[in-house]
Amino acid sequence: MATNASEATGDEDAPDAYRTLLEEYRRVANLRNAGGVLSWDQQVMMPEGGTPARSQQLSTLSGLSHELLTDDGVGAALADLESAALSAAQSAVVREIRREHDRAAAVPKSLIEELSTASSEALPAWERAKADDDFESFAPHLRRHVELSREYAEHVDPDRDPYEVLFEEFEPCLSLERAESILETLRETLVPMIDEIRDSDVALATDAFTALGEYPADTQEELCRDVLSTLGYPWERGRLDTSSHPFSSGTTFDARVTTRFDESDPLGSFLSTVHEFGHATYTLGLPDEHYGTPLGEDRDLSVHESQSRLWENHVGRSAAFWEGFLPTVAEHFPQAGDVTPREAYEAANQVYENNLIRVEADELTYHLHVVIRYEIERDLIRGDLDVEAVPDVWNDKYEAYLGIRPDTDAEGCLQDIHWAHGNFGYFPTYSLGSAMAAQLYAAAEDDLGDLDASVAAGEFEPLHEWLTEHVHRHGARYETNELVERATGDPFTADAFVDYVTEKYGGLYDLDSV
Amino acid sequence: MATNASEATGDEDAPDAYRTLLEEYRRVANLRNAGGVLSWDQQVMMPEGGTPARSQQLSTLSGLSHELLTDDGVGAALADLESAALSAAQSAVVREIRREHDRAAAVPKSLIEELSTASSEALPAWERAKADDDFESFAPHLRRHVELSREYAEHVDPDRDPYEVLFEEFEPCLSLERAESILETLRETLVPMIDEIRDSDVALATDAFTALGEYPADTQEELCRDVLSTLGYPWERGRLDTSSHPFSSGTTFDARVTTRFDESDPLGSFLSTVHEFGHATYTLGLPDEHYGTPLGEDRDLSVHESQSRLWENHVGRSAAFWEGFLPTVAEHFPQAGDVTPREAYEAANQVYENNLIRVEADELTYHLHVVIRYEIERDLIRGDLDVEAVPDVWNDKYEAYLGIRPDTDAEGCLQDIHWAHGNFGYFPTYSLGSAMAAQLYAAAEDDLGDLDASVAAGEFEPLHEWLTEHVHRHGARYETNELVERATGDPFTADAFVDYVTEKYGGLYDLDSV
Repeated sequence: MATNASEATGDEDAPDAYRTLLEEYRRVANLRNAGGVLSWDQQVMMPEGGTPARSQQLSTLSGLSHELLTDDGVGAALADLESAALSAAQSAVVREIRREHDRAAAVPKSLIEELSTASSEALPAWERAKADDDFESFAPHLRRHVELSREYAEHVDPDRDPYEVLFEEFEPCLSLERAESILETLRETLVPMIDEIRDSDVALATDAFTALGEYPADTQEELCRDVLSTLGYPWERGRLDTSSHPFSSGTTFDARVTTRFDESDPLGSFLSTVHEFGHATYTLGLPDEHYGTPLGEDRDLSVHESQSRLWENHVGRSAAFWEGFLPTVAEHFPQAGDVTPREAYEAANQVYENNLIRVEADELTYHLHVVIRYEIERDLIRGDLDVEAVPDVWNDKYEAYLGIRPDTDAEGCLQDIHWAHGNFGYFPTYSLGSAMAAQLYAAAEDDLGDLDASVAAGEFEPLHEWLTEHVHRHGARYETNELVERATGDPFTADAFVDYVTEKYGGLYDLDSV
Repeated sequence: MATNASEATGDEDAPDAYRTLLEEYRRVANLRNAGGVLSWDQQVMMPEGGTPARSQQLSTLSGLSHELLTDDGVGAALADLESAALSAAQSAVVREIRREHDRAAAVPKSLIEELSTASSEALPAWERAKADDDFESFAPHLRRHVELSREYAEHVDPDRDPYEVLFEEFEPCLSLERAESILETLRETLVPMIDEIRDSDVALATDAFTALGEYPADTQEELCRDVLSTLGYPWERGRLDTSSHPFSSGTTFDARVTTRFDESDPLGSFLSTVHEFGHATYTLGLPDEHYGTPLGEDRDLSVHESQSRLWENHVGRSAAFWEGFLPTVAEHFPQAGDVTPREAYEAANQVYENNLIRVEADELTYHLHVVIRYEIERDLIRGDLDVEAVPDVWNDKYEAYLGIRPDTDAEGCLQDIHWAHGNFGYFPTYSLGSAMAAQLYAAAEDDLGDLDASVAAGEFEPLHEWLTEHVHRHGARYETNELVERATGDPFTADAFVDYVTEKYGGLYDLDSV
């Protein structure tokens, strides 16, 4: 095994410590991927009674992967390699493993267990609080999570901004400074743009599909399979199933997607399938021969989200796509036979004026939902905001940025699960992914020429190859900004996204600012 | 976790070493059960491309569980507990873990890896040899497996019969002497009985179902779901799926079954579903509170097979069952509306006179297929038979015991996968399970009265409760013979099985010997 793997990856002359390090890391990766299969099964297949055993299995797997990662042997191999002569790829592997090792080793096991216990207690409390619209009952749990997370950050690095440290849990290779500047640009661009849309007289064909009766789940599933095939999803390395929250998981050999169905509206399952296809196609584009090493792993959440958003928004919500694909929709749903491509395009791109819920938001307002969460969690972690003040601050920001104000905390600051999990620093990656998608798509068009014609013709291979070449095949070799810069020629900014939404929504809503 | 678990199991006053031992063993059990989920997924859900990653994941899990089991901490805890005051249940737990630990620790890791490599090479070679009917090309692999297995047995105990040692891999708590005596009784009873059946003039209604056209797989699946519900399968802790070979796997919280469909004959999927139900119901009857410890694990293969055979043969193939269940079959398949219960019973119990294939055999000839394999593998391992001689010996035995002779090795000694896996000592457990099923069923009838009326009425709860009470709930607390003796009042023999088949097949085929 070791020999074959090192031959395939050109590591046959690597130092012994490098081989040892990789062998241990492969076990960590296999444990994590095994955990991924167990989680997929839990969400898609497992009968409800299975939870007690499944929780223990997952806890054993994650405990062991932490033990292997922080093992003395790994530490010794890393120390040996500090002055070793390594290729650029090997240096990247060592950099990635070192960061994971150092971080895991810095935090005492007792704190990991406290965090896990805090989550176990916070999750049901959050569910109840949300159901009862009772923020007060959740506040102590949120406070506990804030305290433990600050403690965690302090163990990792007592000299740095704790929010920056936590952000690196999800986005380890992008500076928070760059991330913050992108989020600020989004806010500054989108607040006035959405305001203008609210004042616009244009009425989009928002009910192009929903006015036409029911869309049976079975037929929606056939349509989702069709779109996956059209986009080039390799069924011999994947599957489509149903789950209560759509997701994608797996490895380069087996990257699965799920969706869910709303029988009044086929666009939901359709666009979520395209979104998850984007995630899966990234995973599938990772190099087979580096499976189980950082060169075969994704470059974290923002890049992952850039791939799902690129396919969902730049392809699945484009006018060109609906020109080409609408006949397939009408084949499955004859009731939609008279919908025009323009109407379908409008229905897929309406901007909701009164939506309070992040996961139901459109391509524009979505990012203000994210910015609000980012600003609040950053201030909580930095000690600039008290937990008690969260509901009011939340509601004030919704009023300021989106012109709407929640009546209840259930549809306000209690709506998301992330903080109940103790995850602070996760939200920004959603918007960073959209910004990166726009920059990558613009660069692909610079290289390949205008993609509208091929998208309308159902030819996705050139785009797919471009993404594999410039993003997927590198795994975690480059840090995030370097990856974007190598792919696009420019540092990662929100500029391409601003151009994209200005042109698209300017056109849709006939805005003056265009 | 530890506190709750020990409260639930009455272990709160156990020595520290006992708690340590259990904590480590739970991790081993969780790794194994995680592996079970991965294997289920591989056989039922995984796209074909997933194999390379899945093999590595499974190999990491089994390697780690071997490491944890042989860890110095486990050895030290076991040493500490040698003279500790333990309850009877705790002593059983220590006995089980000690046996596993000692066995795993006795065999060098290098040999485990050689065995694994030998299997990886033998499996494709076996597939090709079977397809090409070319035993010669498989012979070197079989020879290698025999050599490595003898080496393995020597590491475990150089002073004992190596076949006995290998048999204990699958049946660690039953003496080979007892097993051999049961297999001999089966051979001595069945060879003349099958001979007599071959000479009988009785023609059973063998084509009662198969003469009536096609049975669509979808409808067969509905029927299988119905029979599972009728038997009391708890869907909140299980599922039914399709796989190329039916199997059952899981834990007491989530025990799944699979089946497969032959559209010309509904009995195959039906009886395999009932068989797998028997396995699952054993797993489901293991005590929740002992999950992850030997008291929550099954008592190995023969007992497991006794549960599947009991439900398949003593319930699913009984005249009483068909009296009660036939109307449900006719509901799903109107073409079977005129089949009588007697005809259905006969169709489910025909003895095949010309079948060479073990997995297609009936309730009687099946055991001669097993005895032939047992005799050959025993002689191979003991050095009394050369690999080259296997095809001839195989064919001679088929002629002597079953009156038929394979024309090819593909339908002779190459038909089963077990030896290509390097598994010697597995086959006997199939027949031991049938013998045990008969003994348990007879004892249940002694306790509960004749079960025909309740089986015909679709009332399976009393039988189910008896089995839970006398078998399932004990987990691996008792060794095999003690478990049988406690449940039935007698040591484990083939007597009940001989009585059962003599009465049943004597009646069906009007045999003189009855």
